[in-house]
Amino acid sequence: MKPLKNLMSSEEAFRTIMDNVQPKQKVEEIIIGDANNRILAEEVISPFDVPPFNRSGMDGYAVKAESVAGADKVLKLMGEVFAGEDKNPEIKDGECVKIATGARVPDSCDSVVIVENTEAKGNNVIVYEPVLPFKHVSMKGADIKKGEIVLKKGEILTPPRIGVLAALGIERAKVFEKPLIGIISTGNEIVPLGSRLPAGKSYDINTFTLKSIVERNFSIPVVHSIVKDDKKKLKETIKKGLRNSDMVVLSGGSSMGERDLIPDILGNSVKFHGVKVKPGKPMLFASVNEKPVLGLPGFPTSCLTNAYIFLVPALRKMANAPNREEKVVKVRMAQSVQSSPGRKQRITVRIENGKAYNVYKESSTITSFADAVGYVEIGEGVDLLERNEEVEVKIFNW
Amino acid sequence: MKPLKNLMSSEEAFRTIMDNVQPKQKVEEIIIGDANNRILAEEVISPFDVPPFNRSGMDGYAVKAESVAGADKVLKLMGEVFAGEDKNPEIKDGECVKIATGARVPDSCDSVVIVENTEAKGNNVIVYEPVLPFKHVSMKGADIKKGEIVLKKGEILTPPRIGVLAALGIERAKVFEKPLIGIISTGNEIVPLGSRLPAGKSYDINTFTLKSIVERNFSIPVVHSIVKDDKKKLKETIKKGLRNSDMVVLSGGSSMGERDLIPDILGNSVKFHGVKVKPGKPMLFASVNEKPVLGLPGFPTSCLTNAYIFLVPALRKMANAPNREEKVVKVRMAQSVQSSPGRKQRITVRIENGKAYNVYKESSTITSFADAVGYVEIGEGVDLLERNEEVEVKIFNW
Repeated sequence: MKPLKNLMSSEEAFRTIMDNVQPKQKVEEIIIGDANNRILAEEVISPFDVPPFNRSGMDGYAVKAESVAGADKVLKLMGEVFAGEDKNPEIKDGECVKIATGARVPDSCDSVVIVENTEAKGNNVIVYEPVLPFKHVSMKGADIKKGEIVLKKGEILTPPRIGVLAALGIERAKVFEKPLIGIISTGNEIVPLGSRLPAGKSYDINTFTLKSIVERNFSIPVVHSIVKDDKKKLKETIKKGLRNSDMVVLSGGSSMGERDLIPDILGNSVKFHGVKVKPGKPMLFASVNEKPVLGLPGFPTSCLTNAYIFLVPALRKMANAPNREEKVVKVRMAQSVQSSPGRKQRITVRIENGKAYNVYKESSTITSFADAVGYVEIGEGVDLLERNEEVEVKIFNW
Repeated sequence: MKPLKNLMSSEEAFRTIMDNVQPKQKVEEIIIGDANNRILAEEVISPFDVPPFNRSGMDGYAVKAESVAGADKVLKLMGEVFAGEDKNPEIKDGECVKIATGARVPDSCDSVVIVENTEAKGNNVIVYEPVLPFKHVSMKGADIKKGEIVLKKGEILTPPRIGVLAALGIERAKVFEKPLIGIISTGNEIVPLGSRLPAGKSYDINTFTLKSIVERNFSIPVVHSIVKDDKKKLKETIKKGLRNSDMVVLSGGSSMGERDLIPDILGNSVKFHGVKVKPGKPMLFASVNEKPVLGLPGFPTSCLTNAYIFLVPALRKMANAPNREEKVVKVRMAQSVQSSPGRKQRITVRIENGKAYNVYKESSTITSFADAVGYVEIGEGVDLLERNEEVEVKIFNW
């Protein structure tokens, strides 16, 4: 049992992790109906104009604008064009054609008079108001021009972006393969759910919180069974994880107890062990043949806090996804909170009536998170947040 | 071809929809490893204390605090307790037991001295600093008390909430079944992806944007094939949708062209047809034997805008999910924008250097959305947003 020495700063630990994870380059092709929230792996250039023809935006009559300059003009009705029809009648001055929303506006017309401003009388149409040229017409290419870059590599496929692919008739899109993330809970004190809880033991929480975080960040969890503090078993499981995943995330077992075997197993590939953060001091990171291994603390809240701070950005980098946007609100503390000087501390808070309440109990408590809306960072040199002090709450975006 | 009369206000249309959709009551039981982002259908009460014993938060020595009052006390080492062990040795004044993070603190001790403040000498331990009672000990029940309500019905299962279930050893959770949402694109002008685009036609966009929206809002899309403007076919498909889904969402075909058959088919069950919004005027809503049918406009951006405003809240209500939190930022317009008085208009914008730029082109353009970060509402009575005018941008949370 030896204390951790040479703790790394939170910032340096973050940089070390980010420098040692790389975007996954493999690409797969999927139908766009399955593309929700995937990361586009190609630049998409439009092969044609959208709309591909001048399109009516309203129900009404296609005309030459000059035919209806002035009020109450009477035009001769020459036929009709419905949406989807391939018609292009030649319309002359003083004539019009009935047209539906979405239908092709004849090349000989430059605008559409909406039906509300007209009256049909036999073969004639009275137009009560003049119209400006190009009114109610989506010109060919107004949405997307042929050759235009419409989507970029690395964009998240949101509903409108999927819509852009569909507009171009693209049935299949190239997206980045999701990184596979091995999840290993370790410790003699951890037992699986569904079993009776023996004295001295705790249920496995981190497998489930980490699985959910991985799923929410463009990655695929690969869950391993709980591993006891047994060097051989641990080594085997880490090896297996490195073989069938792009990254391995462990929780527990990297503290300084005598059974802390992970640092031993990882040996020279360890980039840091021990970080100046609270909670999270015993955190560990290694790079084994360029595959990252992150050792998170075993206590659930400590594991979760550090997963949000260190793991989520790493997952997103590996997944080729953009950074998570941080939402920050400024409020005053409803209570004073003590901190540990010398380590950056993060406390979870809830906000009520515009004030922040500390809901952080201890690094071992899962409720510190379930009740929180975000967290406050307390700098290394600060030992007290005062009541009414203004703080920045970083809102969780689970 | 008749104009829509008696347009309903946007607010009344919203209320009508929300009054006519009901939370789905069916519940299913799933393993918590699959519970990410599901909606909890039960209140969860803790059957025991968490932690179930006084638990050490650090590696060190469990002591009676009174034994180490004053500096440099020498204690007799009586053994050790590792995490997961079921040991409860009787420790007397002047004695200590080595203890690991996560291990049970003996009932006879009230605090833990961290290893950093000690030195082991043979069978003795020198403690260099006094410790307060309960220091570094998570007391039994400090996280969750037996009988405490830890999760409420209707909560989204986020990583920490899944963690709370795991902490209680709960392997399966009751969650609300996801509502099934039938999606039907209609119109003679719409062709499926992957085919060549005939003159006068457009690719089916709305099926894919709506599918993605449904998936992002706790619901399951049930996609139907495109239906042409054929009354019999449309009627059959709507009927089928009503049979195998909890709601039917149509796009296209509710405008006032001569081929607008949906209002005819739905007859007396139509609650409104025509809304004072731009884009979106031809929107329609019906309730058929208490199953909601929403008719969205056919133009992609018009369809998307109104899906976000009217469909998403309805989906979330049906899914028993909490309302989407709106994020609003105040910025100034970079340009002036004209609006249509008499209808509430929504324009999509992007924000650059703290100013909002209009990216809304027309209701038919999908790029109006793909480039946007949010939208600005322009009131019914307003006909111009001026340059430099302060506006509230509602940020899209896809």
